[in-house]
Amino acid sequence: MALDVPPGYRSLKEADVSSYLAGVPAVATKLGGSVTDWKVREVGDGNLNLVFIVEGPSGGVVLKQALPYVRLVGESWPLPVRRAFFEHQALAAESKAAPRHVPRIFHFDETLALTVMAYLTPHIILRKGLIRGIVYPKLADHMATFLAETLFATSDLGQPAAAKKKHMALFCDNIELCRITEDLVFTDPWRIAEANRWTSPQLDAAAAAVRSDGPWKRAAQEFKLKFMGEAQALIHGDLHSGSIMVTEDETYAIDPEFAFYGPMGFDVGALIGNLYLAYFSQSGHETWPGERDGYRDWILRTIETVWTLFDQRFRALWNKAHGGDTFMPALFATASEQAALQAAQDAYMRRLFVDALGFGGCKMTRRILGLAHVEDMESIADPDRRAECEKQALRLARVLMVEGSRFDGIGAANEAARAVRRETAKVPA
Amino acid sequence: MALDVPPGYRSLKEADVSSYLAGVPAVATKLGGSVTDWKVREVGDGNLNLVFIVEGPSGGVVLKQALPYVRLVGESWPLPVRRAFFEHQALAAESKAAPRHVPRIFHFDETLALTVMAYLTPHIILRKGLIRGIVYPKLADHMATFLAETLFATSDLGQPAAAKKKHMALFCDNIELCRITEDLVFTDPWRIAEANRWTSPQLDAAAAAVRSDGPWKRAAQEFKLKFMGEAQALIHGDLHSGSIMVTEDETYAIDPEFAFYGPMGFDVGALIGNLYLAYFSQSGHETWPGERDGYRDWILRTIETVWTLFDQRFRALWNKAHGGDTFMPALFATASEQAALQAAQDAYMRRLFVDALGFGGCKMTRRILGLAHVEDMESIADPDRRAECEKQALRLARVLMVEGSRFDGIGAANEAARAVRRETAKVPA
Repeated sequence: MALDVPPGYRSLKEADVSSYLAGVPAVATKLGGSVTDWKVREVGDGNLNLVFIVEGPSGGVVLKQALPYVRLVGESWPLPVRRAFFEHQALAAESKAAPRHVPRIFHFDETLALTVMAYLTPHIILRKGLIRGIVYPKLADHMATFLAETLFATSDLGQPAAAKKKHMALFCDNIELCRITEDLVFTDPWRIAEANRWTSPQLDAAAAAVRSDGPWKRAAQEFKLKFMGEAQALIHGDLHSGSIMVTEDETYAIDPEFAFYGPMGFDVGALIGNLYLAYFSQSGHETWPGERDGYRDWILRTIETVWTLFDQRFRALWNKAHGGDTFMPALFATASEQAALQAAQDAYMRRLFVDALGFGGCKMTRRILGLAHVEDMESIADPDRRAECEKQALRLARVLMVEGSRFDGIGAANEAARAVRRETAKVPA
Repeated sequence: MALDVPPGYRSLKEADVSSYLAGVPAVATKLGGSVTDWKVREVGDGNLNLVFIVEGPSGGVVLKQALPYVRLVGESWPLPVRRAFFEHQALAAESKAAPRHVPRIFHFDETLALTVMAYLTPHIILRKGLIRGIVYPKLADHMATFLAETLFATSDLGQPAAAKKKHMALFCDNIELCRITEDLVFTDPWRIAEANRWTSPQLDAAAAAVRSDGPWKRAAQEFKLKFMGEAQALIHGDLHSGSIMVTEDETYAIDPEFAFYGPMGFDVGALIGNLYLAYFSQSGHETWPGERDGYRDWILRTIETVWTLFDQRFRALWNKAHGGDTFMPALFATASEQAALQAAQDAYMRRLFVDALGFGGCKMTRRILGLAHVEDMESIADPDRRAECEKQALRLARVLMVEGSRFDGIGAANEAARAVRRETAKVPA
């Protein structure tokens, strides 16, 4: 298949980067010195793109360029570079809503499908921090803010109908990236698919059981339908712990190329689900049983705080004067109207909670049985230990997807995670 | 405000129509004879458009042209003529899915915002038939087919994700007509709005009560949010009994200019809600109490049959090989998977049922307290009798919107309608 790129597109080599950036005054100023002073290195370890870090005497930038195929797979799986456009659009919307948690953008080139943004240093990818057992005391607070601010602002509560429809029309065109999620997250783990892989033979039976589990398959398809049809807000679309960069003090969400108008619970669930993956992977990183007990507790506390603060902040935005064309404050002025409004908010947040758990479960399942796995698990060298962690994660994933509505709150979901470890861990929970 | 029309747009006069149509070979052939043989009359009695009936020796056509303002209100309320484009697009999609219930289109002119379609004769507007007490034995069957076929075909069950997203992007631009629904159907009846009117003084207290009824206002805003954010399928968007043309044997849905990707329940509810309005209006058309008892029963049976057949046919389409990217039949092959699929369908149809009742209630409320009323009620000359009918309809509307989830099926909703009449009718139910 011919690769689909705009006229003028070429993928940059390390040697091309400096001369390209010399032509972008905002970036040249940021880097300082002259072209010959700039150091360029390609560091892309993701699945889709080229990523160059460029450092000059005054500062650094990251240049991210979309390749016309899935890097993880190769040219046999083409993917439009236009995803860089959607990423740029999403970054712009997110920056407006939650500027402290979105990298600053210096330059966007639609033809080359590349974005130049702030080089975040000494930030690391959250997933790597979670593997090392590093505590991020502000992570939950920051991510709750990012989620509440970005999702509310682009929902029908936060923006007028006309603005939302125009924005949504734009993202309707992000077809191929949505398709990846539709296939890889919601479908392939529940059927025989060439791209699937798992820790074998340890998980062979578990994988087969998933493929004939009626209620679980039903839940997966119900969440897929919700993903495809509920245009609640502009969602990041890929908010796992590999799309978050952290220090102890700062938190940034990056890489929103999967963005489109979809269900909010997908973003909240992506984060929560990946934190549960980190939770279950900890025993694979222990040098003695119990070594990571405290860290496991911190992960669960983080999950609880993410949800609790998200819930608070989303409601707070709703209760202020807001830009949306629904639930206008003037309609709910008296005490009884206020009570009705609060009941509506309770029902809304409850649905969102059950959605988040279910989507989280989908994301966990696909990382164990599907194409793309996570380093939390992959870095556990002993396949028996890895399989043990993965089985536990898989068990919770099913509960979150099939029985999410029986949890009365995030504490109960965390208790279910602990129970899975108690029941199945070879080491005491 | 300047009226927004494309270059070259002009509104046609009766005298212009024949010469315009002479330039459209498909139409000239259909009419037969020559231009001087054609009879033109303007018959638009709707709120928005010019409608000409043109008859020639061989046949007739209808020419419908969008005016750049709301005809009901005047030039002070501009409205883009581009709605004719969305209507044309929707007619095309509906014709593909349910050809027997959509008028044939002969010509579309984007510049003049006009469509030439089959002249349906001796068909009349369903609402007029309902006022006269005419039984339409095939109405429920036909409308169940129209609803099931059009909604399924454009849902994520019936069409691939990429096709849906492209189609949806198009209709995202139908902003102004969606806005009319958002304001008039979901908001104005629950607040003081200049455009509101009702039978006064008889309904003054009822209208005031609605404006301070917290749970009812909550429900209205929840359905509004659903209307704005649930992109389930391409919906007609205005499927009341004035948008349906009937004979004993044939049924056509017309005028889908409000079409967009929204919640299916809005179409089903528009029909059901308008049938309930017809039900409650009957006592206003009786010359002696009980004269319309049999007809009232027929209306309720029609409502029951619409839902029952719609439910059956929608499930049947789902159970066949279908074009959607969710719930692929191959995923649900074994008996236990089939059982899970059926449970999913039960839950899906249940949600759709509760949505339909609620949206129906919204549509009923706005026809009694909002800007645009219905002839079913307006044609009751005695304001006391009319107010009595309207109060009953309003009472059911609230139940459908606030308590819809307590109805175990359409029979229970009909029983609630009967109970409202028993409790409040001056004549015995």
